[in-house]
Amino acid sequence: MELKEAIAKLTELQTKMYAYRTASSALYLDGVTVAPKDTSAGRGVALGILAGEEHKLFAAPEVGELIAFLKDKKSELDELTARQVEILDRNYAQLSKIPMNEYVEYAQLTNEASDIWHRAKETNDFELFRPVLEKLVKFNIKFAGYYDGTKKPYDALLNEYERGVDMVYLDDFFAKVRSKLVPLIKKIGEKPQIDDSFLYKKYPVEIQRKFSDYIMEVMGLNRAHCTIGETEHPFTLNFNSQDVRITTNYSENSLADSLYSVIHEGGHALYELNVDPAYDYNCLSGGVSMGVHESQSRFYENIIGRSEAFAKAIFPKVKEFFPEQLEGVDAEMFYRAINKAQPSLIRTESDELTYSFHVMIRYEIEKQLIGGTLEVKDVPAEWNRLYKEYLGVDVPDDTHGCLQDSHWSGGSFGYFPSYALGSAYGVQMLRKMEKEINVWDSVAKGDLAPVTAWLKENVHKYGCLKDPAEIVKIACGGEFDAKYYVEYLEEKFSKLYNL
Amino acid sequence: MELKEAIAKLTELQTKMYAYRTASSALYLDGVTVAPKDTSAGRGVALGILAGEEHKLFAAPEVGELIAFLKDKKSELDELTARQVEILDRNYAQLSKIPMNEYVEYAQLTNEASDIWHRAKETNDFELFRPVLEKLVKFNIKFAGYYDGTKKPYDALLNEYERGVDMVYLDDFFAKVRSKLVPLIKKIGEKPQIDDSFLYKKYPVEIQRKFSDYIMEVMGLNRAHCTIGETEHPFTLNFNSQDVRITTNYSENSLADSLYSVIHEGGHALYELNVDPAYDYNCLSGGVSMGVHESQSRFYENIIGRSEAFAKAIFPKVKEFFPEQLEGVDAEMFYRAINKAQPSLIRTESDELTYSFHVMIRYEIEKQLIGGTLEVKDVPAEWNRLYKEYLGVDVPDDTHGCLQDSHWSGGSFGYFPSYALGSAYGVQMLRKMEKEINVWDSVAKGDLAPVTAWLKENVHKYGCLKDPAEIVKIACGGEFDAKYYVEYLEEKFSKLYNL
Repeated sequence: MELKEAIAKLTELQTKMYAYRTASSALYLDGVTVAPKDTSAGRGVALGILAGEEHKLFAAPEVGELIAFLKDKKSELDELTARQVEILDRNYAQLSKIPMNEYVEYAQLTNEASDIWHRAKETNDFELFRPVLEKLVKFNIKFAGYYDGTKKPYDALLNEYERGVDMVYLDDFFAKVRSKLVPLIKKIGEKPQIDDSFLYKKYPVEIQRKFSDYIMEVMGLNRAHCTIGETEHPFTLNFNSQDVRITTNYSENSLADSLYSVIHEGGHALYELNVDPAYDYNCLSGGVSMGVHESQSRFYENIIGRSEAFAKAIFPKVKEFFPEQLEGVDAEMFYRAINKAQPSLIRTESDELTYSFHVMIRYEIEKQLIGGTLEVKDVPAEWNRLYKEYLGVDVPDDTHGCLQDSHWSGGSFGYFPSYALGSAYGVQMLRKMEKEINVWDSVAKGDLAPVTAWLKENVHKYGCLKDPAEIVKIACGGEFDAKYYVEYLEEKFSKLYNL
Repeated sequence: MELKEAIAKLTELQTKMYAYRTASSALYLDGVTVAPKDTSAGRGVALGILAGEEHKLFAAPEVGELIAFLKDKKSELDELTARQVEILDRNYAQLSKIPMNEYVEYAQLTNEASDIWHRAKETNDFELFRPVLEKLVKFNIKFAGYYDGTKKPYDALLNEYERGVDMVYLDDFFAKVRSKLVPLIKKIGEKPQIDDSFLYKKYPVEIQRKFSDYIMEVMGLNRAHCTIGETEHPFTLNFNSQDVRITTNYSENSLADSLYSVIHEGGHALYELNVDPAYDYNCLSGGVSMGVHESQSRFYENIIGRSEAFAKAIFPKVKEFFPEQLEGVDAEMFYRAINKAQPSLIRTESDELTYSFHVMIRYEIEKQLIGGTLEVKDVPAEWNRLYKEYLGVDVPDDTHGCLQDSHWSGGSFGYFPSYALGSAYGVQMLRKMEKEINVWDSVAKGDLAPVTAWLKENVHKYGCLKDPAEIVKIACGGEFDAKYYVEYLEEKFSKLYNL
């Protein structure tokens, strides 16, 4: 085989994989946004077959030979092709170990599980979800062995979401976070609490929809390439760098829920939209890892979105949308309200400070589930125990407990830690950004363009060209260190609560 | 090969084809409803590849052998399998003649064309659409040869939408319609015109959305299996008998546009939802032809939806939704307004009486385009000439002329006549239905269930188990005859206009 021919084949293969991924993504997106309620069976049949065809395409021995051939010629390849070969080689080694029938069964299972989880959450019925969760856990333990048989199963799964991260690393990270933040949360608990009651007045969904349009405009999201949909559990989906979708969930009794969901997902979307379009339709496209992705979404959501500068910049406009609800409220009160720190039940609605504890709880449970030391049936009790221990709150039911997140029903075990890691990456990136551009002056004017330009240059544009750890190093200007994150939270919340 | 094994292979093949069709449909649906504006390129890449894979799957020589094997054993097959083999044999003979590259190119072309057509219509720029329309015409002439080389190209295309129908048949049908209806339209033109101005007051889209929910409820559309979306040019899409989507387009200045669009698409949806679910995932699923499909949609839209009984049954509720707009309007005025007959520019907004003339114009143009006697560049002039000749109206611009419909951009040539045929089938079905159930008493109570049950039994349930002509014969109780349609229109409109 000629080198040129081999590269052409590699491109064709990746474009086909893009097509299958696009098809499955479109079906998924439809399923969780606009599809009628009782239609998952038909989608499941299609998704199962598409997953099987994709598997057949990529796990074929010829693909292994093609990759091996190109690996041998590594010195003759340009940077982009060499990186593609490296990534595909890794993926091939994994995927080719998963038997086709298991792969297809798993695709069907996650489709079905999503539906069951929705119903279970709605009716507070963990027993309904239990059997499917048991299957998902079993599959993930088995798949972990395929991913990397030399690692402990949960380490192998963690590595899928954030290459290079394992339990030793995370135990250390979370220990640092815990040691500093537990006393801080305790001190805050002794102080008079911030009044955020005006955030929970009646905020008509119709006006919130228009408010989302405004927020997307502030974020510089180009609507010709990025739309917003509505779903149960907000997410961002990228078809390619020119076609990204965010979703939100409106609650009529809350202003901040959807506001910060839109900013969070908008951060994911900016990342995807700013990846070099030359990587479209091949494996360099898209964000590099869940941790780096969350670093971007939570950067916009918290570091920018819950900053004093941003809150005060947008407040006059917020008040234009909701004059009655915000009567008598000023920018300072708004800033303080959106930062009220208080242990609570729901991760996605929790404040910046206590957020990591929600993640830790999930991490501890996943570690035990995948490690085989916790049975699925015991998840609710363990969940409730940990919420009491870490956050001091009583979980009233599973809907507000272990059934609140969609991740497990989607087959994601090992994803949650990325949220906390991403939050921490983001702060360290901020410190570098502050040295290079005038971050807060721009934000105070409501102008996020310089921030986004910096992130595009230091994070977004790379797509998967580099490993997550390399990108974190570039954007942080050195090795990752949790201290920046902890110090940032200490400083921000000490000031907010006059400690 | 064992018979049992061959049947299993046939099932597997059809399920895979269902999966590819589902994927393409999901991408199409997304593209015309919620996708961001500038994203068709990425969808085009995926759609092209999926079309290619589907083609490769079905046009493979092994499939030909499988079908031939099963054809030989026809006497040993059950009814359903025998019919599947018959349909697949016909499709295989066609598809295997289309070279893969042409098939893929065509899939990409129609995706691109849809986008260009949208822009051309928006900006009244036929020149923008012309090059792509030329390509589409050329493709269709070529494909007509693949479909059936023994037929004239346009006959071959017509046969795709309504098996057994050709230009001789349609020329005769349209001549009958013309001979009776031209004098009727002329007579109406001399009478005082009905006042329908209250239908064009300001009807807020938000309330129209809720009104659509009510209409879907009246029609008995189960929302757990059928949702409504918004798009430029309304259509119905069926994934399977358990998952059907309708779409509409709201105009703030019109009550009837979306109302009758919802009832029309609702009629298509009821057909799809009532096909025997045993046919899901194989080639017996879905409506049998465009003509029969339109017979159902136009049955609900006009025969039921614009009947005196229905108009008067729903009017009190309509008035609840729009009390200010309909102040001083009574049920009789409403019934007359929704039936105002007047030659006009836009097919989808035209009345039941003049509708067929819009179809005839498109039929005449397609006949010439595919017949090679009309060049694409001359379409606007010919369109405008025919509107003047048939309907006596002057076309002010191409947006309100030859750019108004999406069909050509989607590659459909030969589809339009089904609208007129369907309207005519529907009336003849009504005559049989009236002998068997108490149609108008139920409708007058706002109860469409008996009508739908009858249509399910006589049309819907069959799916593609029988040819369109057979189903028409069953539901009409005999050979199709245009006279029922013409008589129905004469009677209805003579009464409305006191002729």
